[in-house]
Amino acid sequence: MSTPIIRLATETDLPAIVRLLADDFLGAGREDVSEPLAEGYLRAFREILASDATDVFVLEVDGRVVGTMQLIDLPCLSDQGTRRLGIEAVRVDSSLRSQGYGEHMIRWAIDTGRDRGCGLVQLSSNKQRTRAHSFYKRLGFKNSHEGFKLSLG
Amino acid sequence: MSTPIIRLATETDLPAIVRLLADDFLGAGREDVSEPLAEGYLRAFREILASDATDVFVLEVDGRVVGTMQLIDLPCLSDQGTRRLGIEAVRVDSSLRSQGYGEHMIRWAIDTGRDRGCGLVQLSSNKQRTRAHSFYKRLGFKNSHEGFKLSLG
Repeated sequence: MSTPIIRLATETDLPAIVRLLADDFLGAGREDVSEPLAEGYLRAFREILASDATDVFVLEVDGRVVGTMQLIDLPCLSDQGTRRLGIEAVRVDSSLRSQGYGEHMIRWAIDTGRDRGCGLVQLSSNKQRTRAHSFYKRLGFKNSHEGFKLSLG
Repeated sequence: MSTPIIRLATETDLPAIVRLLADDFLGAGREDVSEPLAEGYLRAFREILASDATDVFVLEVDGRVVGTMQLIDLPCLSDQGTRRLGIEAVRVDSSLRSQGYGEHMIRWAIDTGRDRGCGLVQLSSNKQRTRAHSFYKRLGFKNSHEGFKLSLG
């Protein structure tokens, strides 16, 4: 494993991030990697930059963006006001999977949660992603919850 | 069903909200309803007020707070930049369950998501809450995901 760098995403990373989102058996059908990028990506990215609660990160190896994830700071009242860290949209380049990059990214997210005073890290993962589930369990996560989605499309 | 009001929570609602969080078979062991409230609740509530991404709501019936939920605005890159609405910590007074108040609250949340331009509403629910799962499915949600939690405590 080459030494990876995790850093905040910038707008110039956006095409690489969208390629990572599309490079996935669930994402393939719903993303659009053509450039210039569909306006929705840019609008969403600018909203993420403007928000004080969420950030998109990239994982860079040898100067190339090969992973991404989104982190969400979530102050919550339950469990005596336990702050949570949410993780969304975790992706690693399909040619580099099972080499420890995903683990590096998620461990970094967990450390970030701890640094931010979170008592809980949470994420949901499509039931079809059985390999990802084994991975999260290996890192100590428990699949104690059902994840529900309602499309408004 | 008396006509319910849904409104943003204020600090004076906090003891009632904490009682709702505790009035639950999973929350009973981890909340503290004693007053003055444990400092963690107040700190978390002030962080929620200060955040531009999340709000706590209460459901009021006949001048009494009998329900609560937290909504989270989540700009996301995936699915061509589809904005999401997250729902957390949904509770209805145990003496008033199965009377339509929960449905009123969740339908209001869905409408709010639509008004805010969200294409997806998401939540996770402990696997032990089987009645809640039937309820969410009835409202159109699909439990397509596994919900993972990692405690940092």
